[in-house]
Amino acid sequence: MNRIQLINRIKTSQSYLCVGLDTDITKLPAHLKGKPNAVFNFNKAIIDATKNYCVSYKINTAFYESQGLKGWEAMEQTVNYIPATHFKIADAKRGDIGNTSDQYARAFFETLNFDAVTVAPYMGEDSVRPFLEYEEKWTIVLALTSNKGSANFQRLTVDNSGQHLYEKVLESISKWGSPNNLMYVIGATQASDLAHIRTIIPEHFLLVPGVGFQGGSLADVSRYGLNKDCSLLVNASRAIIFASGGEDFAEVAKTVAMEYQAEMSEWLKWEG
Amino acid sequence: MNRIQLINRIKTSQSYLCVGLDTDITKLPAHLKGKPNAVFNFNKAIIDATKNYCVSYKINTAFYESQGLKGWEAMEQTVNYIPATHFKIADAKRGDIGNTSDQYARAFFETLNFDAVTVAPYMGEDSVRPFLEYEEKWTIVLALTSNKGSANFQRLTVDNSGQHLYEKVLESISKWGSPNNLMYVIGATQASDLAHIRTIIPEHFLLVPGVGFQGGSLADVSRYGLNKDCSLLVNASRAIIFASGGEDFAEVAKTVAMEYQAEMSEWLKWEG
Repeated sequence: MNRIQLINRIKTSQSYLCVGLDTDITKLPAHLKGKPNAVFNFNKAIIDATKNYCVSYKINTAFYESQGLKGWEAMEQTVNYIPATHFKIADAKRGDIGNTSDQYARAFFETLNFDAVTVAPYMGEDSVRPFLEYEEKWTIVLALTSNKGSANFQRLTVDNSGQHLYEKVLESISKWGSPNNLMYVIGATQASDLAHIRTIIPEHFLLVPGVGFQGGSLADVSRYGLNKDCSLLVNASRAIIFASGGEDFAEVAKTVAMEYQAEMSEWLKWEG
Repeated sequence: MNRIQLINRIKTSQSYLCVGLDTDITKLPAHLKGKPNAVFNFNKAIIDATKNYCVSYKINTAFYESQGLKGWEAMEQTVNYIPATHFKIADAKRGDIGNTSDQYARAFFETLNFDAVTVAPYMGEDSVRPFLEYEEKWTIVLALTSNKGSANFQRLTVDNSGQHLYEKVLESISKWGSPNNLMYVIGATQASDLAHIRTIIPEHFLLVPGVGFQGGSLADVSRYGLNKDCSLLVNASRAIIFASGGEDFAEVAKTVAMEYQAEMSEWLKWEG
């Protein structure tokens, strides 16, 4: 999916919601737990219930890998089930030397038909470039994350310049790709930083996790993150998929997704 | 496997060689290519041929994930086939917010029976700690890698202190674990840095990739990296497993592994 298609999809759906399929097997509703294909069946119901209110799904690979072969199978089934209209993100946080990143890019862009994969920047240019080489695929690089540990390294100042590491990451990596194939992960719990980040990268899409359970506010993220093309994907995972732990999980997920979509629709009318 | 067991194994085997199973399906010998279970059968032959000359195997997850479900199955079969005497590393370079790192730790330490997993430090403390919580399991954090891109961020100076990011990573992360559950990835192509790194972390095991194809020298790594307990695992991947592309691949891999082991045996006698 290219940038224009993604922007059009956002306009049509009046939503920039990404539903995070962090499908923790221990949190499945009792009537599904332990049943065959429980993870895929859960995801299928969530996708059916939420697809009219979101533009993207994000699969957190960790929750599938922890289940081994069965988990990997559920991930394959899930990505194949997501409608072609929706932007499919592998939240995998990969990154390695060039010939290894090549293999990760193949895993998520060819073997599995994802539109985008999240990538960690620590290993530098040759670890990121293999992902950028795919046409109409997206590399989403970690810049400033939503967790407490983001203070340990991302907010260090570098090069005696007063510039933070995450700013250097934004500046460097923006030279290797373009707003047509590169996005950044910016944590929603740091919404006050978004206005500043928009001065560094006014055009790029930002994937913003951390709304909901991690405490970020959709209003703050929208106020400081939206640009004329929207260029935001706001992710909520637990706050949607585990909003109810009962048999009504899909229905409740739908209600929460609708609420996000309604608020986003208002923000899309906003002129800044 | 704990530190004492690993050190004893190194002494018994007179080797600190780790064989990297970066099993690229496109480089398999012609007689295996396209056959059922080709990747596992290749790995099995490599393990049988090299196990007397190495103390560890490192599975690079990218080469398995790129093959999808079949690849994940080959990884499971391979890790189960590696003898219990050998230290099993998942070279996965994972790292995410706490509840997600929990799942990655479960994937590699419980679902798959690895002894160690490589972890990227960018997301900080809560992304690393879940791996450190497992008894007799190891977290191997990326510090200074062997690729060109290591210059982009790892060698930036931080905090107006002249300290490099990778040094800050070593200093910070060493507080979260101990030499009994924490190792570092230090690239062999930067062997001249090893003497300096040993002043920061004299005790920790170092996993040193990049010997062989990436141009690192075993002599340099050994001279600057060995300590009284050895505390080195030197990895060679392509230089061993693809030393021959023919039907004799396992025999030739054995010869190359023997050569490494012979040189390592000499270094283990060295008194510095």
